[in-house]
This record gives sequence, structure tokens and C-alpha cells, in this order.
Amino acid sequence: MSEIPYKIYLEEKEMPDRWYNVRADMKKKPAPILNPGTLKPVTLEELSGIFCEELARQELDDTTAYFDIPEEIRSFYKMYRPSPLVRAYCLEKKLDTPAHIYYKFEGNNTSGSHKLNSAIAQAYYAKKQGLKGVTTETGAGQWGTALSMACSYFDLDCQVYMVKVSYEQKPFRREVMRTYGANVTPSPSMNTEVGRKINAEFPGTTGSLGCAISEAVEAAVTQEGYRYVLGSVLSQVLLHQSVIGLETKAALDKYGIKADMIIGCAGGGSNLGGLISPFAGEILRGEASYDIIAVEPASCPSLTRGVYAYDFCDTGKVCPLAKMYTLGSGFIPSANHAGGLRYHGMSSIVSELYDQGLIRATSVEQTSVFEAAEMFARVEGILPAPESSHAIRVAIDEAIKCKKTGEEKNIVFGLTGTGYFDLVAYQKYNDGEMGDYIPTDEELQKSISQMPKVE
Amino acid sequence: MSEIPYKIYLEEKEMPDRWYNVRADMKKKPAPILNPGTLKPVTLEELSGIFCEELARQELDDTTAYFDIPEEIRSFYKMYRPSPLVRAYCLEKKLDTPAHIYYKFEGNNTSGSHKLNSAIAQAYYAKKQGLKGVTTETGAGQWGTALSMACSYFDLDCQVYMVKVSYEQKPFRREVMRTYGANVTPSPSMNTEVGRKINAEFPGTTGSLGCAISEAVEAAVTQEGYRYVLGSVLSQVLLHQSVIGLETKAALDKYGIKADMIIGCAGGGSNLGGLISPFAGEILRGEASYDIIAVEPASCPSLTRGVYAYDFCDTGKVCPLAKMYTLGSGFIPSANHAGGLRYHGMSSIVSELYDQGLIRATSVEQTSVFEAAEMFARVEGILPAPESSHAIRVAIDEAIKCKKTGEEKNIVFGLTGTGYFDLVAYQKYNDGEMGDYIPTDEELQKSISQMPKVE
Repeated sequence: MSEIPYKIYLEEKEMPDRWYNVRADMKKKPAPILNPGTLKPVTLEELSGIFCEELARQELDDTTAYFDIPEEIRSFYKMYRPSPLVRAYCLEKKLDTPAHIYYKFEGNNTSGSHKLNSAIAQAYYAKKQGLKGVTTETGAGQWGTALSMACSYFDLDCQVYMVKVSYEQKPFRREVMRTYGANVTPSPSMNTEVGRKINAEFPGTTGSLGCAISEAVEAAVTQEGYRYVLGSVLSQVLLHQSVIGLETKAALDKYGIKADMIIGCAGGGSNLGGLISPFAGEILRGEASYDIIAVEPASCPSLTRGVYAYDFCDTGKVCPLAKMYTLGSGFIPSANHAGGLRYHGMSSIVSELYDQGLIRATSVEQTSVFEAAEMFARVEGILPAPESSHAIRVAIDEAIKCKKTGEEKNIVFGLTGTGYFDLVAYQKYNDGEMGDYIPTDEELQKSISQMPKVE
Repeated sequence: MSEIPYKIYLEEKEMPDRWYNVRADMKKKPAPILNPGTLKPVTLEELSGIFCEELARQELDDTTAYFDIPEEIRSFYKMYRPSPLVRAYCLEKKLDTPAHIYYKFEGNNTSGSHKLNSAIAQAYYAKKQGLKGVTTETGAGQWGTALSMACSYFDLDCQVYMVKVSYEQKPFRREVMRTYGANVTPSPSMNTEVGRKINAEFPGTTGSLGCAISEAVEAAVTQEGYRYVLGSVLSQVLLHQSVIGLETKAALDKYGIKADMIIGCAGGGSNLGGLISPFAGEILRGEASYDIIAVEPASCPSLTRGVYAYDFCDTGKVCPLAKMYTLGSGFIPSANHAGGLRYHGMSSIVSELYDQGLIRATSVEQTSVFEAAEMFARVEGILPAPESSHAIRVAIDEAIKCKKTGEEKNIVFGLTGTGYFDLVAYQKYNDGEMGDYIPTDEELQKSISQMPKVE
């Protein structure tokens, strides 16, 4: 066996040519998404009014195991993929652990995160369908950035509704999107009926993700040749993100490494679901076992403290209902700096795998997350996004446990992106001004009790 | 011949194990640097009071062709090197050019630029000499960021004097440095004699690079166990940066590609000098010919409009004198957004190669640079630093010429870093508020006439 390099790069020809749909290997499938009006499973026709037809098809297909990655998408992937699987030699040395730590680094593209893997797929299908453009919302800005870049590549119009407070506080995110030619509108805006209504009702409001989703959906359905796109939660997104897990597995196999633990941060579930899909598939088919850990912020603990039930995917209640681990769509997470993890629910695939006991979950507090982020940055030379740093925290904790037990575990975690646009958070941490927030049982009970009653 | 991939990655074992010192192959060497007091060539002993001894030795050695890269530095390099040589297929398609465009991408590390190649070397030698720490100045912040990261890796104290206006206007750069544990002081400060003097003389001043250098040098020579380090201009820096050119050449050779043109942006010359060194060596040894182009900003045109003479390297006039193409150390460049190129002089190696006619130079205006940057970002998916975008501009122009002539030239350029911290500049460009500035002949004459008279 050859020595394991710092970075395991696959060759271009080793890049996956198919996405993997883990639902195909699940005996008990995730529950179907429901039409919010009829409470019946959404049909392809209904869903095609909101999403591109091909994406709607992917969303509803829980039996096809593999989907060919179209050549145009593979061609774009080649600009930044295969992404490296890095052996964290320096972190191991710093921790003095017998564990072998690996991370799959998805930050090596200008969007700065894994979001691009699905953005380019969604833009491609929109272009293929002959659409003029797409609409979306963005909070933290990673998804909006990735989508802007993808639309620019396929020469599609991209309309991003950005939560007004982010629009004002994250001007650099906004500028990246504009540089890629996107039309970025602070939400609530005066462009849409729902925006005008909210502005009239709450003058001076700085917006919310729920409101931005509502505006983006309205903009999609009221403009000829537009559809709405979303960067997480959906099963189609996890399908596209399976490229992360497939590459990770291929890189490990190349060097004969068997992962013991696989760790990922979990907000809506797009990264975690993508990373673990092929490994969960092996578990489901009885071929291997892995200790898979979803890491969520203590301030927004949908898996560890939520309920498994049908809920709205958006605060505006315009999207289909999904059965998922949720804190209730009315739950308002604290201003945790990991904006990408501030989501009340969890992908229905991840939720079902968790419910079946195939993966476990843990939650961590934000100051301990930044402590891990800083240690990681200093030795590994990558400034991690706060979201990704949730996985780093748990990987470090597990490696420290290995030091105590002497186990040479192979720990693999997903490093979803970089923290270049999160330096306000780092500054707070550096200045000792960062706090932690954990919702009380009463708060959670309140938002959970307001959920729709669907059986 | 196999098909050329989007990214040519060398394997770790193909990473250079020696730096190349192009001076060894120059029959006419760059003129020696002079002691500013005696105007005699600086001795190793004198230089060792400011720089680490090994670095002083490298600075003065113009005959040794190769220096082994110490194992500790190679080990660090492996975290982000070999860096990819990317075939810009998408840009070629966009330009509809028969030219083949390649870029060596040095932005794949958290410091975001090529500066890390020398920062880690300088930190290593400081550590090896048993020093407590190093001092430096930073303007735009790329060098300070890289050095902070390098010092953090070797557990060295890092004191950065950051021009006060940058300290205030680029708080995120400052936070990255702090995250890596550096001590960042706005300059002029009250820490040093020169700082206190300037503060007393010019209350409320926002500082200058010259002042920050003076403070950093004073801090180095007045603290036990400290030395001063610099990120460009010096021959030692070009030596370390030769790793860029050596890898570029190895990647081209791997696929049997012969470069026709090599293009790099030029501020102090660290990136350009590193990129072209092995190619210039081939020219000097009569083994090959290349069309090498240095690209500088029209607002700070040291090669294209400066004089070739001895000048101070710093505005504070505390460093040795170097013979170089210069606009005079008193020249104050306009507030061009490519902060890393706002330097009055040019590396003595690059200057001498230029004077011997081995390379040519051109200057470009900043709005045309940002136009090229935006086009590049949209198709190639990397948001380039304004500095790097000078090379992109000329690469695009040359590829367009090839379209007219039908020539299938192989154009190689250096993409030194990313523009994540330059979004204020992108915003100005997006808003149509960016201007151009070209100094008048009178302005240049004035600063050039104030230069020291040294023969």
C-alpha cells in the first residue's frame, strides 16, 4: 500500500458519472411530500408548476438508484471537481491522536461551498427546459452565490431575494452575486404582492427567510418562463450532493481505507445527506457498517430535540408539506452565526435514516464550534465556515476520545465551505463577545404545538 | 498524447524539492544591494541584523542555482501544493479563440494568494534560528495574512503593522490575521519611536506603507529575538516563489505542452519572478525562447515609465538601496484597488531581466482589469484578486489577437489569488463608479528627480 498523501485527488476520469439516490435502497421510504391545499401526495404535474419538470421528477422518484450526470454538468464539475479528500496530518499531530482524520473539502470554488454541486444541476435543467430564469431566496448567502455562478454559466436570469438584514449586513455576499450577474433584491421588496403586503403591515421590517421564500415563489409563478429553485432539504438536492459521498468513497477505496466514522454538519441536510448517501446505502444493503453522526447547532436542534411529523418546509407555508424532524415552521432560531444551519426542519431522507437508527445525531454550542474552527485553521490552513466547523468540533472530540482509548479509527468529516464571509463572527469570537443560546423546552413546545396536524 | 484535463494536478512526489535561483544563470547579475549609510554593498553580517541569517545568505547568493527546500517546508507545502495548472477551456470557448489558455492558480489556501510560499519559508528559518518572532508590515493584507498563518504553524510570534487606513477599512483581513494568532497594530502606533514621532507630527494621520515598514523594522531591531520579514521585491522571496514556475513547467512538460507566452502581474515582482524563473533560465541558457510579459497597473508603471537606478526600497528609507526600475520612493500611487501592485519599484532580478530584454512589460487601466476579472469569474468560476486580474486582462487580449491571426498559441498566466477581500472594489465596478488614473509625466519627473544619486 502506498503512503497516503496529504490530499487524495481523484483524476477527472474517476469523477462519478452518476448520482446516487439512497431512497432506492431504503425499504421504508421517506413519506411523500403533500400538497399544502389538499394534503394529498403532490403529483408530478403539480410540482412541475414550481420546479423544472426534470427536477420535479427527481424529487418524486424513490426507486431509481442511479441518475446519469449530464455531460454539461460533468463539464462544469470538472472546473472544481473532483474535490480533494484531505488527510489532516497536522490536526492529528496537534491532537496527538492515533486516529486518522480525513476531510472532504468542498470550499475550493468561488461560491465557497458545496452548494454549487446542486446549483449547477438545477440551472442546467432550467436551461434545458428552455426557461428564461430562476428565482430563489438566500439568507446567509452561500446558496445565492452558488446559484448566481451557475446561472451565469448557462446564461440564465437569476433573481435572488435576499433577507433584507443580510442584504444590508453582508454587502460583500451581495456583490459576489452581482459580479456573477444576478439580480439581488432585498426582501421584503415592492416587487411582489406578498412583499408589498408585508412592507405595509410591518413598515421597516428587516425581513425573514420565510418572507423571502414567499416572494421568490410568487416571482417564479407569476413570470412566464421562470421556476423556483431551492438549495437544501429537497430530495433532488441530496441526489446532486451525492457526488460528495461518491467521491469520498472512491478516494478512500483508492487507498484501501475503511471509514469508521462519518461526520457532517446538518442544517437542511444537503451536505450531510450527500456525504453519507453511498455509505448509508451500504448499510441498507447489509454490506458494511459505519458510525454516522449528524451535527447540529444547539440553538436549532431539529434532530436531537424536534418531533418527526409533517410540517411546512417554509415559514410562508406556500411549499409542500414534508414529514421530517422539525421544531415547527414557526420556530425562530437565535442569531447563531452558522446561518446555513438555522433551519427548523431536516431533509426527509436524513430524517427517515435517523428515525430508522442508521445515523445518530448530536448538537454543539457555537463558542465550542469556533474554538474548533480556530484550532483547525491554525494547523490545517483553511479558514472554515461556521457551518462546517460543527463537524470539525465533533471530529476533534472523537479524535480525542481515540487518544484515550488508543483506537486508530478512521474519522471522515465533510468540510462544506470556507469562512471568508463570516469574519464578523470570527471577530466576535476573537473579542470574547460570542455567546451561546439553547432554546428552552417551553419555546420548543410552543412552536411544535403550532404545527399542522396531518396523519 | 492523452487529453488535457481541466486541471493538471501534479502528484505530491512531483512537487519540486529545490528552489531555483535564476541569478545563477544570469551572466550579468542584478546590481548588489547597498547599505543606505555607507552606499557600499551590504555584507552578510549587516543583513543578518535585519533578516534571519539563512535568509540573508539566500539574499546575497547569486551563484548557487538550486537550494534544497527543507523537509519541514515541503511538509507544509503539501497542505496546498502542488497547486493546479488549469486549462481555461470555458474562457477559450467564451472568447472563441484558437489559443490554449492555462493558468497557475495560487489562491487555493486560506491566505488566498501565492504569498504563503515565501511566508512559510521565512517563518521556518526564523524558527530554526531560535527566534521568538518576526515583524512585518502589511497594506492590502495578503502578505500579513500569509505570514500570520505561517507563524501560527511554527508557533512564532507575529507582529504585523497594518497601515491604519487598511486596518480600519479592511476589518476582515485584520480578523483573519487575529484568528491565526497574530498581533495586528494599526500604524502609525504608539509602540515605536518612529510611530510616536509621526503621530505627534501628523495627528490623525491614517498612515502609509513607508511608515509601517519603518515601525516594523524598529520593532524587529529593538526586541531581543526578533527579525524583520518582507513579502516581495527581495531576491530571497523570488527564490521561494520559484516553486510556482517549477510546478508550472513540470505540469506543462507532463502533457508535452510548450508555452508560447507567459504572463504575470507585477507589483514588487514576487509572483512574476517566481512564475517565470525557470523559463527565464532556459532563455538565459539558450535552451528555449518564450514571450514573457510583465503586466503592471497604469497608475503605478515602474517598468514601463520608470528609470533603472538605485533607489530606496521603502518610503522610510531604512532598508538597503536596490538598483531597480523605479518611480522614486517618494511616488505615491493613486488609490488603485490592486493594493498589492502599488509599489514604486520592482524586484532587482525582474528589473535586470527586463533591462536585458528577456521580458517585456505593459500597463493596463483598472476598469479594463475589472472587466476582464468579471468575464473570467463568470466563466471560470474563480473570483480573481484585482492584482491577478492584470494578467487576466492581457491573457484575454492576447487570446483575442490569436483569434484574428488564427494562431494556436499556448498562453500561460499566473492567477496569484482570490478577490474575497476586494469586494469593495468589485462593488465600485458593478456600480459604474470606478475610475482610472494615470500619473502625468510631471508627477513622475518630480518623484524620480528626488531619488538618491548613486552610481
